[in-house]
Amino acid sequence: MKRKVPVAVLGATGTVGQKFVRLLADHPWFEVVAVGASTTSVGRTYGEVVRWRESAPVPREIAAMPIRECVPPLPGTIVFSALDAEVAGPIEQALARSGAVVITNARTHRLDPDVPLLIPEVNADHLELIDCQAESRGWPGAILANPNCSTAALALALAPLHHAYGIERLFVSTMQAVSGAGYPGVPSLDIVGNVIPFIGGEEEKIDRESRKILGTLTNGAVEAAHFTVSAHTNRVAVVDGHLAAVSVGLSKRVDPEEAADLLRDFVGSPLVSGLPSSPHPPIEVEGRVDRPQPRLDVNRGGGMAVTVGRLRSCPVLDLRLVVLGHNTVRGAAGQGIQIAELLVAQGRVGQSSPERIS
Amino acid sequence: MKRKVPVAVLGATGTVGQKFVRLLADHPWFEVVAVGASTTSVGRTYGEVVRWRESAPVPREIAAMPIRECVPPLPGTIVFSALDAEVAGPIEQALARSGAVVITNARTHRLDPDVPLLIPEVNADHLELIDCQAESRGWPGAILANPNCSTAALALALAPLHHAYGIERLFVSTMQAVSGAGYPGVPSLDIVGNVIPFIGGEEEKIDRESRKILGTLTNGAVEAAHFTVSAHTNRVAVVDGHLAAVSVGLSKRVDPEEAADLLRDFVGSPLVSGLPSSPHPPIEVEGRVDRPQPRLDVNRGGGMAVTVGRLRSCPVLDLRLVVLGHNTVRGAAGQGIQIAELLVAQGRVGQSSPERIS
Amino acid sequence: MKRKVPVAVLGATGTVGQKFVRLLADHPWFEVVAVGASTTSVGRTYGEVVRWRESAPVPREIAAMPIRECVPPLPGTIVFSALDAEVAGPIEQALARSGAVVITNARTHRLDPDVPLLIPEVNADHLELIDCQAESRGWPGAILANPNCSTAALALALAPLHHAYGIERLFVSTMQAVSGAGYPGVPSLDIVGNVIPFIGGEEEKIDRESRKILGTLTNGAVEAAHFTVSAHTNRVAVVDGHLAAVSVGLSKRVDPEEAADLLRDFVGSPLVSGLPSSPHPPIEVEGRVDRPQPRLDVNRGGGMAVTVGRLRSCPVLDLRLVVLGHNTVRGAAGQGIQIAELLVAQGRVGQSSPERIS
Amino acid sequence: MKRKVPVAVLGATGTVGQKFVRLLADHPWFEVVAVGASTTSVGRTYGEVVRWRESAPVPREIAAMPIRECVPPLPGTIVFSALDAEVAGPIEQALARSGAVVITNARTHRLDPDVPLLIPEVNADHLELIDCQAESRGWPGAILANPNCSTAALALALAPLHHAYGIERLFVSTMQAVSGAGYPGVPSLDIVGNVIPFIGGEEEKIDRESRKILGTLTNGAVEAAHFTVSAHTNRVAVVDGHLAAVSVGLSKRVDPEEAADLLRDFVGSPLVSGLPSSPHPPIEVEGRVDRPQPRLDVNRGGGMAVTVGRLRSCPVLDLRLVVLGHNTVRGAAGQGIQIAELLVAQGRVGQSSPERIS
Repeated sequence: MKRKVPVAVLGATGTVGQKFVRLLADHPWFEVVAVGASTTSVGRTYGEVVRWRESAPVPREIAAMPIRECVPPLPGTIVFSALDAEVAGPIEQALARSGAVVITNARTHRLDPDVPLLIPEVNADHLELIDCQAESRGWPGAILANPNCSTAALALALAPLHHAYGIERLFVSTMQAVSGAGYPGVPSLDIVGNVIPFIGGEEEKIDRESRKILGTLTNGAVEAAHFTVSAHTNRVAVVDGHLAAVSVGLSKRVDPEEAADLLRDFVGSPLVSGLPSSPHPPIEVEGRVDRPQPRLDVNRGGGMAVTVGRLRSCPVLDLRLVVLGHNTVRGAAGQGIQIAELLVAQGRVGQSSPERIS
Repeated sequence: MKRKVPVAVLGATGTVGQKFVRLLADHPWFEVVAVGASTTSVGRTYGEVVRWRESAPVPREIAAMPIRECVPPLPGTIVFSALDAEVAGPIEQALARSGAVVITNARTHRLDPDVPLLIPEVNADHLELIDCQAESRGWPGAILANPNCSTAALALALAPLHHAYGIERLFVSTMQAVSGAGYPGVPSLDIVGNVIPFIGGEEEKIDRESRKILGTLTNGAVEAAHFTVSAHTNRVAVVDGHLAAVSVGLSKRVDPEEAADLLRDFVGSPLVSGLPSSPHPPIEVEGRVDRPQPRLDVNRGGGMAVTVGRLRSCPVLDLRLVVLGHNTVRGAAGQGIQIAELLVAQGRVGQSSPERIS
Repeated sequence: MKRKVPVAVLGATGTVGQKFVRLLADHPWFEVVAVGASTTSVGRTYGEVVRWRESAPVPREIAAMPIRECVPPLPGTIVFSALDAEVAGPIEQALARSGAVVITNARTHRLDPDVPLLIPEVNADHLELIDCQAESRGWPGAILANPNCSTAALALALAPLHHAYGIERLFVSTMQAVSGAGYPGVPSLDIVGNVIPFIGGEEEKIDRESRKILGTLTNGAVEAAHFTVSAHTNRVAVVDGHLAAVSVGLSKRVDPEEAADLLRDFVGSPLVSGLPSSPHPPIEVEGRVDRPQPRLDVNRGGGMAVTVGRLRSCPVLDLRLVVLGHNTVRGAAGQGIQIAELLVAQGRVGQSSPERIS
Repeated sequence: MKRKVPVAVLGATGTVGQKFVRLLADHPWFEVVAVGASTTSVGRTYGEVVRWRESAPVPREIAAMPIRECVPPLPGTIVFSALDAEVAGPIEQALARSGAVVITNARTHRLDPDVPLLIPEVNADHLELIDCQAESRGWPGAILANPNCSTAALALALAPLHHAYGIERLFVSTMQAVSGAGYPGVPSLDIVGNVIPFIGGEEEKIDRESRKILGTLTNGAVEAAHFTVSAHTNRVAVVDGHLAAVSVGLSKRVDPEEAADLLRDFVGSPLVSGLPSSPHPPIEVEGRVDRPQPRLDVNRGGGMAVTVGRLRSCPVLDLRLVVLGHNTVRGAAGQGIQIAELLVAQGRVGQSSPERIS
């Protein structure tokens, strides 16, 4: 690839938007050419407006960019949307209509039948949905979605088990980091020395999104996986990293050692594992009894690897395990970028046009 | 009761021992007459030795008491043991042999067939086991146990459901406070901004102890409840209060509203609910969607009440709920004292003798 | 006092407002008859609107009260204002003009020459300023202020030293709790595992307010104390309790032991020490080398006592010490209520009228 | 340099020892050839024994090394000692006697008149003290020390001010991370939601060590700087990074802007700034009003840069500022390695011998 693909980031001043900006700063394939945020910020530069929470400094070129309004036309073949779900829908649709390939972190379109909800290692084949989308919507551009932050890690860790043994029932209790709620997000008075046993809408997302991701594409439609999910979602005083305690029931009995080998050996397709953001391996299996831990393990694989630990048998279902993933990398910005890389690698998006998008 | 029953506290300088001392300081029925700790402390006063972690000051009379060795004879009709499990067994046996009624917080004897494992509101009838114990061991005293800190709250919250509908399967994922690990306990480097998804031996305890507590006493033996348990135990950066996300499968379908009413209306026997340490009600049902929270709700009922929230249906089993209990009050010292109160109320222990213990 | 004095609380749904509501719930002299909050809440009940953060439940009677708009006329002889400084000024003035005695926690009027800034144990004599205020403003009511949360504890702890030895220079570096920033206040992403070395406007407040409080009333005006202040204010991951590391230079040399005795023996006037909210003693001196600590010591004297520890000599100035106070009790609501008690005890305010206010 | 200099790490399993191991893993000049720890670990491999707390994995080669006893002879021209002060003295002396160049993180020898206490950017000239040491002790090896973790950052930040304007008085109040206390170190029960206003011996270290470091070498002896220090040291719930609020009195008045320029422009000698571990610049000056913050800024310059913020005038002395440094990198292991690099760069230590050490 000689020239980089121009991309825009919307909602660029938020927690996930900042992560997009940082991860794209030195990206080998992409170049940020526009940043969008709320209208009150328009006209000022990104550096002036952003309350930067990353420890690396704001990339110099992006700091100098003027904030743009989130309306088409925007420069950029690909638009990464970190917009709030409250406003994302109409903006993203307008952009797709104007020809942009929108990769969104908002929940709005995730469950639309013609929007692929992607974890490249798991369901790259679901990309075909954008052909249906082109047909049904008639847009020159497209909308693709990455899953919510807790589902991203969970569905990746469960994919090899589901494909090999068929998940039937799932119990999951999460302990989620405060960065998952954005900024300002969770008030410190609520979380210092405390746990909040509720995250609005999150349990439903885990249920529906994980079943769509692990579902089967047939005749241009995804049939969701059939397992049932008992989800509990909790907020804890951790900065980055969503941890999930998981019990899983499979269609046949499996030994924990065998399951560990399966996860350890998991690689996506060669096309996916060759993407710049793909970690090697995508799933790291931990043998130490008290791991994974968010503070020590969240950045494995640059935040794109998921760590699985405590694989052991389950007296009620078949297996128990613990899953950790970085909620703003694998669970948001990193995942979105990896999806964009997949589009480029498949030749669906080039430097100047998404015309081959479908 | 004219005169107070003399009691001793062993392991009195630890986290649970301190809680015993504080709760017993103004107890209407009991009076601390001896405090025991490790031999290195013997001879110095409690006030000199203890690294006091309660916010109320050390009770003046107890601060002045000399630390005693943990060997019989000890003054005190009842001995509360907060000894480490590593050393508790032989000491507690020697004390029972010498005539003391030992109420222990150590795990050592909890699963012994002739040792009652008690939550008075739930299984006061299991007290009869000490008759068998007297027979089998031939001790003039006795050993009674309270459950481990996470089981205490869980089994109390589940008891009404089990008795009404029969628990068949149980998922539980805990988020446990650092005070549950004693002092010095969890190193701060391990828990600040972190979660540890492992607590040694805790998952097995939840399984075995909850089934013994909810089991049935028949012919002088407890038949454990038959449900299976899928447990995950986690340590979080909370000072006091163990929270558990629970999914439960019952022998018949039950509506969440009906279950809430059942829990809300639960009272133990009149004898138990009249004890000084018994909270009213023992189970508080929370309707606010983001409760219970450890920091806000842990001290309900003086730390003896358990709070249940988020009662809702479960796509995999029957009900989902969240349970919170104070791990060093309901889960340790408060529970131990309530057991002692039950012995007194039943006339099994008087001021000067445990001879009617069985 | 036969009947209780009717009082209103403005800004009643915020952190400090909630503390007022809780502390007033069973107050022997006062009875809450009205609660005010932002106009968007008007018409709904307090229980519906408030996001209650206290561990004790919302007082039943107050939960049922309708939220009122913060404009006169309001029932209540005394109005406690926990309004944001952004809106407090005009509202409080209108109330005083309408005849109410306003005790405000907002910074707006604290430095007005005719507004008493009060810590009853320290400068009850400054109350006379309301006579000047009555004259200058012509209001039938009045405005009185309590100091900001970090100054309240600091100035109380320093008062005996200043009166005995004359403070000339002061270094203070605070470590302040998140509850001091209200709700939602500090985002958890900013403070979990972190310190923020800046609190807007706080260093100036410590300087000016402590010198006014420790100043001298002469001819109807307070001449501020003359010492200079080098202040550093920091936010830490603590829920309640502002801690300050202090070095103080005095007009004469003093031995730390002597200073400790002075602080320990400090009592306010008999009138003040007899008030319901006055702690005994107001200053607790700690000998343990690692105390005071916010989590263990913040609630001494019901949150109204200040704890001083680590009194030792200073190589640069004269003394070093550590001061801890409860920022929403002594530093806000408790202090405001104690000021109101002082007005009642002096006969300046009765059940039905503030006409003797000046 | 063709071959790497062989080095050993003592106390290699502790917090600072682990940091040495990680920083040395890919060092361009040094190669770890031995790791020492307590005798109970001897014989097992480093990987088996260490409770690894770094997020990067244990370096493979070092994981396989057998733990050695901490006695001479040890392979390695340079020995980095992260031993506890309780045992460090005799071991380090025996090693120096056996010919090793010992760079110690222990406090034991820091104030010995013939032991250089080094921050290379600040006082590389103090290295000459080892000539005196060679003479006075007659050892073929030598002992050099790095300062304690809070002094390291503080003295580096103050050095340009002292050299330009002469520090006369210093007020410092620290907020120190838990990693500064090692592992297990601070019990979580003491620090979750809390501050401990005391760290044993730390205030004295700041006083004496900063004055030695900023002192003047004359005739083979360091004359300590003459300023007085009022220090307060506090422990906070931060993982890495010691923050200090500082007020400083100088021999002449200086404008904050001028001081900022001075700090910003500070570079050590060319020899020092060319060392592999030297950050560029050594002091980063922050203009954002709420920075530096430990979580966001601690890793600047790979943990070797110190960040200074909030430079402003002081009503009592001359300047106020906030200083942040990484306590186990600049404050311990990184600083020790940089000292070793200086020895190599000066030709005092080569691959196989320290004979030119003095």
